[in-house]
Amino acid sequence: MAPSLLCPNPNPKLSLPFSWRPCPPRSRAAFFPRPFPGQSSSGYLAGHIKCSLGSRPEYIPNRIPDQNYVRIFDTTLRDGEQSPGATMTSAEKLAVARQLSLLGVDIIEAGFPASSPDDLDAVRTIAMEVGNHPMSADRHIPVICGLSRCNKKDIDAAWEAVKHAQKPRIHTFIATSDVHLQFKLRKTREEVVNLAREMVAYARSLGCQDVEFSPEDAGRSDRVFLYHILEEVIKAGATTLNIPDTVGYTLPFEFRQLISDIKANTPGIENVIISTHCQNDLGLATANTLAGAQGGARQLEVTVNGIGERAGNASLEEVVMAIKMRRELLGGLYTGINTKHIVMSSKMVQEHSGLHVQPHKAIVGANAFAHESGIHQDGMLKFKGTYEIISPEDIGLTRSNESGIVLGKLSGRHALRSRLLEFGYDINGKELDDVFKRFKEVAEKKKHVSDDDIEALINDEIFQPQVVWSLVDLQVTCGTLGLSTATVKLIGADGEEKIACCVGTGPVDAAYKAVDTIVKVPVTLLEYSMNAVTEGIDAIASTRVVIGGEHERSSMLAATGEKVRRTFSGTGAGMDIVVSSVRAYVSALNKVLGFRILSSDKSSAGKSRESS
Amino acid sequence: MAPSLLCPNPNPKLSLPFSWRPCPPRSRAAFFPRPFPGQSSSGYLAGHIKCSLGSRPEYIPNRIPDQNYVRIFDTTLRDGEQSPGATMTSAEKLAVARQLSLLGVDIIEAGFPASSPDDLDAVRTIAMEVGNHPMSADRHIPVICGLSRCNKKDIDAAWEAVKHAQKPRIHTFIATSDVHLQFKLRKTREEVVNLAREMVAYARSLGCQDVEFSPEDAGRSDRVFLYHILEEVIKAGATTLNIPDTVGYTLPFEFRQLISDIKANTPGIENVIISTHCQNDLGLATANTLAGAQGGARQLEVTVNGIGERAGNASLEEVVMAIKMRRELLGGLYTGINTKHIVMSSKMVQEHSGLHVQPHKAIVGANAFAHESGIHQDGMLKFKGTYEIISPEDIGLTRSNESGIVLGKLSGRHALRSRLLEFGYDINGKELDDVFKRFKEVAEKKKHVSDDDIEALINDEIFQPQVVWSLVDLQVTCGTLGLSTATVKLIGADGEEKIACCVGTGPVDAAYKAVDTIVKVPVTLLEYSMNAVTEGIDAIASTRVVIGGEHERSSMLAATGEKVRRTFSGTGAGMDIVVSSVRAYVSALNKVLGFRILSSDKSSAGKSRESS
Repeated sequence: MAPSLLCPNPNPKLSLPFSWRPCPPRSRAAFFPRPFPGQSSSGYLAGHIKCSLGSRPEYIPNRIPDQNYVRIFDTTLRDGEQSPGATMTSAEKLAVARQLSLLGVDIIEAGFPASSPDDLDAVRTIAMEVGNHPMSADRHIPVICGLSRCNKKDIDAAWEAVKHAQKPRIHTFIATSDVHLQFKLRKTREEVVNLAREMVAYARSLGCQDVEFSPEDAGRSDRVFLYHILEEVIKAGATTLNIPDTVGYTLPFEFRQLISDIKANTPGIENVIISTHCQNDLGLATANTLAGAQGGARQLEVTVNGIGERAGNASLEEVVMAIKMRRELLGGLYTGINTKHIVMSSKMVQEHSGLHVQPHKAIVGANAFAHESGIHQDGMLKFKGTYEIISPEDIGLTRSNESGIVLGKLSGRHALRSRLLEFGYDINGKELDDVFKRFKEVAEKKKHVSDDDIEALINDEIFQPQVVWSLVDLQVTCGTLGLSTATVKLIGADGEEKIACCVGTGPVDAAYKAVDTIVKVPVTLLEYSMNAVTEGIDAIASTRVVIGGEHERSSMLAATGEKVRRTFSGTGAGMDIVVSSVRAYVSALNKVLGFRILSSDKSSAGKSRESS
Repeated sequence: MAPSLLCPNPNPKLSLPFSWRPCPPRSRAAFFPRPFPGQSSSGYLAGHIKCSLGSRPEYIPNRIPDQNYVRIFDTTLRDGEQSPGATMTSAEKLAVARQLSLLGVDIIEAGFPASSPDDLDAVRTIAMEVGNHPMSADRHIPVICGLSRCNKKDIDAAWEAVKHAQKPRIHTFIATSDVHLQFKLRKTREEVVNLAREMVAYARSLGCQDVEFSPEDAGRSDRVFLYHILEEVIKAGATTLNIPDTVGYTLPFEFRQLISDIKANTPGIENVIISTHCQNDLGLATANTLAGAQGGARQLEVTVNGIGERAGNASLEEVVMAIKMRRELLGGLYTGINTKHIVMSSKMVQEHSGLHVQPHKAIVGANAFAHESGIHQDGMLKFKGTYEIISPEDIGLTRSNESGIVLGKLSGRHALRSRLLEFGYDINGKELDDVFKRFKEVAEKKKHVSDDDIEALINDEIFQPQVVWSLVDLQVTCGTLGLSTATVKLIGADGEEKIACCVGTGPVDAAYKAVDTIVKVPVTLLEYSMNAVTEGIDAIASTRVVIGGEHERSSMLAATGEKVRRTFSGTGAGMDIVVSSVRAYVSALNKVLGFRILSSDKSSAGKSRESS
């Protein structure tokens, strides 16, 4: 767990489903995240701002005062969220954006506002909240960026969403490789150049001082044409030029050369920032990103855990730790990331996106530091440092048992609250009551309640969507003899209790059918997975489901413009796997119901905007 | 599923728990894997041998006739198997080794024979079987390699294990970085050089013509000392020099330079093969491996799915596909891998190691080719080729629904068998009966039985250890009201049925306690996870558990010499999650019981060897 703390939300109007938020460790009072008094909503913070790694240069869209500083552009909420099953609610996106701000990323790409009214709303909320109120000790406020294709409607939607941030950015893109021009756009090179130039100028004309342009599939584009289109968009006012390796095809030395060549051959390039965006189709995204930085890129587009379409993107944690560990070899490059928040960021993104990393994932996988736990400690002490190049503390990984306190049946609210504070959760009132009640239920059945148990419980309690239905009671009979039967009692937001029973092919099937009888939302179960988070048969099981809503809940892919069905995930924890399965299902259904409510609000709001 | 087929095992003495094995697609009769008549067990196959990718050069330990050919050295069974929880039984290792042979790897590092009698036995079985009988159409037989530290006991054990192969290799290593010399070995540089030289010469003196030497932590070793020790081991008879980036610390351009420098500065290097072995701690293993090949390495050490300690190793599939896709850019390099077997190899290693890859894992992740499935097909057709650089067929990924046949309740044995053949499973007799019975049970409850359902069933049936206990019946009552109760009926290998019931904190806890009451093997549950493999609430759930056995079942880590507790995994599938959980637990317990039986056999065998 990262040592970040969480404080009461100062702005209840833009609230999460729970009423607190992260703030810096051991300095809650001093750095309470409040709007900076007298801060204008359009101006940038001036001068060098102290951050934990020294000093973060002043933010100027097209120039970095320190040539060794590399901007980290996080697109977990845009590119990452478009992965199958990774749909997040607006509240989840806001929570992730806050965590990214605490982590110290320079730019948050918060979504693709033209994709749907919900996406626009989520980006706007993040722009208002995270784009104005510092979360970290250094009072850093990230740029909030919205993606748009090269058309006015998309750019209008992006500006509508991001303009509320102190540092808003529009990111527009169009394909430039011949294969894309011919098969996807059906446009000539000249048409594409004109469109790019006009749309960058249009974005600037709206009042956006910070415009990023991406020539999609740059890696396969004709070199001379690429220099030409980049020159034209610079003239039109682009401040960052992003060079994507869209198909994840290039090798590191080749990508470094591409960036160097662009730097050497594009007139006006010295007045803008070059950026990388590397897909991971051949497993080379991190290496290509670092090679791009060596070639002269000073913005790196990454996602937490490397999530994204297909094989995902370059991992924030890999890129940032490689730069940190090998700074000297990379000519003194550094980032503004506070690496102590990496583990917490990774966990939150896994929780909300449903994309769990493999045990051998670099930096954040369960085995990445397993040297310390699985094997004899006395043997390891001798070799400490011989195999480990990154210390677990560097990335905010604290180990259970280190504090020496074991919670059990006799532990009170105070002991639980102290341990939660150590984990980074500062909760009180009803939240604490709820978690404490769950804790006591576990402690009744289990001698020692481990840190992992507590973490599972708190994740179950706090990473939840707005509650429409919740589980009261469940009773199940099942086995190889057939006729699995489940009885479910749910309570609605209005306090009304409903009971249903069903027969199914197994206990989960039976219970889910009983829930369906009560909730009556047509969905398809797409994924179901479960992990025991702790050792021992009496462990807490954490279940995750992904369900698909109806056709109306669709979203649009940025690259192809296709409509895709939205999917929703839910999690639940419990010592009984059937109970945790039902909790997860109800949680996912609540997300669908919340989304529908939001959608109908938004579609009327959208109409009123259009007609005004 | 890969299109590989499976044929009756011609050598029942060295049998898998099931009675068939892979053979090349659509050519079973022609390339039936039999010992080559008149083949000597010590000589190498001479001349160029045709393989699916053209021609694989003749195998000469210290020289490759074609300078563009890169050897793939797979260490899934050695480095990969040392990951936490990844312990495989000898039968599982043999199955993986056969698959690796079919895949066309040049060298299989089959284990670390000095680690335990079981490891020695597994390597010996693989040497006898896979090291003598070709599995693939090109009649290629891989080198079988055993790891050893720089001491006579280890080298004796390695030779004892690998000498039965047609092409045996001993791989010996010692650390050369100052940090390792000082803290781990407590030896001077001169002592290390003497030891390395003597032990390489000793391995050659046993009759082993093919000796690989690794200077551990080469990446952090003093350069001049590194050249010196390499020169000395070449003189002593080493045929391959492997340069490991033990801590996963180097960047690609740096590693390429290291390999180039070694090539330029080590006297005698032109007479041996240079190899890479890159750890993935910064997510750069694949890039470093490719950079090593560019620097002059002609052997690349990799694992399937990139498994291994900490963040794992370079992924076979990423390295091989990058070389295949970018052959031109890499100066014409190529490998002998038949990429059509990649998906099947990946699945088998996931199944046996328990290390599942993340959805966004490059090449083999569930989302890696998700473009084709999740979104509207008509939209994608227009853009086919604009985003995909690797075709799914290239790696052996066939999609369900493509064949247009849907199996259901009315489908007979013949239809099931045809579909299984398409998947690559050629089973008959009792195996087919068992799978058919399970299939009918599912078809009774589910309208359409999907390919994924069938795959889950067959994996459950065939990837199983020797059966000691099996589940007959189970009955469970559980829910939020407490007092979860399970009744379990198991049948032993002797046909005796036993029944037990227990109360637990949840249905799985109760059922596992009931199983414990019958089986009486003291174990700890370390991991528990479950996935629904198919869409819909009535899906088949696949459960995986990892349990820790007693202290006596320990193994030794190659790098540190430490004893680690062995852990055992088990899987089970079923439409009822409690049933599938119990199946998985019983499967893991069978593995523990099988291991114990094997261990006691072996310790007596070991004693008789020692006394002879």
